[in-house]
Amino acid sequence: MNPAPESGMTAGQGRSTDTGRTATKRRSIVTAARTIFLRKGYGRASMDEIAALAEVSKQTVYKQFADKQQLFATIITTDIDATERLTGSMVENLGVSQDLESDLRRFARRHIVEVTQPDTVRLRRMIIAEAERFPELATAWYAQGPERGHASLAEQIAILAERGVLRAPDPLLAAQELNWLILSIPLNRAMFHGPDGTFSPVELDRYADEAVRIFLSAYRSE
Amino acid sequence: MNPAPESGMTAGQGRSTDTGRTATKRRSIVTAARTIFLRKGYGRASMDEIAALAEVSKQTVYKQFADKQQLFATIITTDIDATERLTGSMVENLGVSQDLESDLRRFARRHIVEVTQPDTVRLRRMIIAEAERFPELATAWYAQGPERGHASLAEQIAILAERGVLRAPDPLLAAQELNWLILSIPLNRAMFHGPDGTFSPVELDRYADEAVRIFLSAYRSE
Repeated sequence: MNPAPESGMTAGQGRSTDTGRTATKRRSIVTAARTIFLRKGYGRASMDEIAALAEVSKQTVYKQFADKQQLFATIITTDIDATERLTGSMVENLGVSQDLESDLRRFARRHIVEVTQPDTVRLRRMIIAEAERFPELATAWYAQGPERGHASLAEQIAILAERGVLRAPDPLLAAQELNWLILSIPLNRAMFHGPDGTFSPVELDRYADEAVRIFLSAYRSE
Repeated sequence: MNPAPESGMTAGQGRSTDTGRTATKRRSIVTAARTIFLRKGYGRASMDEIAALAEVSKQTVYKQFADKQQLFATIITTDIDATERLTGSMVENLGVSQDLESDLRRFARRHIVEVTQPDTVRLRRMIIAEAERFPELATAWYAQGPERGHASLAEQIAILAERGVLRAPDPLLAAQELNWLILSIPLNRAMFHGPDGTFSPVELDRYADEAVRIFLSAYRSE
């Protein structure tokens, strides 16, 4: 009686179930790929193993990801998007901050926790390991991770400089200094300390707070 | 007629020639090992290949180095000693400096050049790559490299704090902050940029000078 909408609906439901199944498979592939990459390194990981661990056919993997590099790029983007969701809004609001010291501390404390997560440290180590053989991976990660982060911070530092809160003739340089002030001590130790490179929250807070103190000493106006 | 001294002399000469030959072989082995380690990574490097490249027998290698790990430790120590020779005396004199800003700049500019040498960057990358499988290598490197460096700097910072030039309640923390302020921007970029991660001397000087400015803003007394 009303065939068009009905069949339309059925087709729609079918499509959305298909989309749901596709999305589920895609997530399984990405999760499996992360595990295999971390276990074997990028060079030695194979699409076969990834398909086997994700319990899908190799064709299914290739239907969604043209090649290993595209799959790896998706992992990087997924991870970075997850981090952005956590600290992105903190960064975006720095420019208009009315209490810069406490807002910077809040961001720094969160940022340091994110970047020293064991899986993030292991992924970082793996990318560094492969930087010579697969420079395109490492440069992509660097561009989408630290460089994007520096650019977002630099925008806010420029606003703070316009407001006269900071004195930062080169906002990008100031942003890089801030980022590495926050991360360097624990991140370098983590890089060289295998699975033991973990930190107590008290330690991390202390590094974050000292980073903010140093940054403000050097860049605050007056 | 004077047999004792003569034969003594002969024996001495023989011994010193032997020692000379042994030292030469030892140097060849260390150089070959560095090449093989950088090419294949620690895990995949073999003592056979190292002996072949050094043009000595495998027994000769084992006469000097108990195992692969000891050989690797020797490379680390050799490299770190070479760096120490270049910046060690600059650090040792910081405590009594009468012009801290310019002495720190001189140290920072030299330190950044040393640490961003392509072979040092590649060795660092390799150690990070193997940190999970061979944590003892990475921790040894970290202890003999950055941690020793931080300790030397901290000693001088403590003297400067006693003199009232700096305000540094935790000299070790201040030393770590200074070290990473100097190195982080170029070193992180180098880690992720394969063989292209090189820098112009002007760029490096700029990072060194900004590091010193930030450090003094945060730690100088008054």
